[in-house]
Amino acid sequence: MPRIVVEVMPKPEILDPQGTAITHALGRLGFEGLGEVRQGKRFEVAVDAVDDATLARVREAAETLLSNPVIEDVVAVRAAD
Amino acid sequence: MPRIVVEVMPKPEILDPQGTAITHALGRLGFEGLGEVRQGKRFEVAVDAVDDATLARVREAAETLLSNPVIEDVVAVRAAD
Repeated sequence: MPRIVVEVMPKPEILDPQGTAITHALGRLGFEGLGEVRQGKRFEVAVDAVDDATLARVREAAETLLSNPVIEDVVAVRAAD
Repeated sequence: MPRIVVEVMPKPEILDPQGTAITHALGRLGFEGLGEVRQGKRFEVAVDAVDDATLARVREAAETLLSNPVIEDVVAVRAAD
């Protein structure tokens, strides 16, 4: 089955303690020169076909169930590579 | 600062209880016709420049810190849109 990818990230103004912890860990592991890390979610949704109607339905599902609109943004809804 | 996106997904053979729970919830919420959902992680890493060396360093960080190679695959390391 083809798949649609949904990408969700915390809103920029929202504190991301997990991302901050990763940022510090990268420094401790010697990955110098890499800046701030932010962590979000990635979903793959199996669909019958990737068409505009299905993309719209997956976006609606993303905005109601796969993300919390108060603290997260749906940053991408696209056909899987 | 430019950013590099890292996308991590559970290996196909790995059970994804969270994804299964979401799949059932979508059905209950009336999103008919959407198939199996799998959930992974998405990171944004701020970098000084997006070049091959930095992409390679971020991929190395992804494979050592941002994912668990036993149960997860790094499916993409790319410049943010």
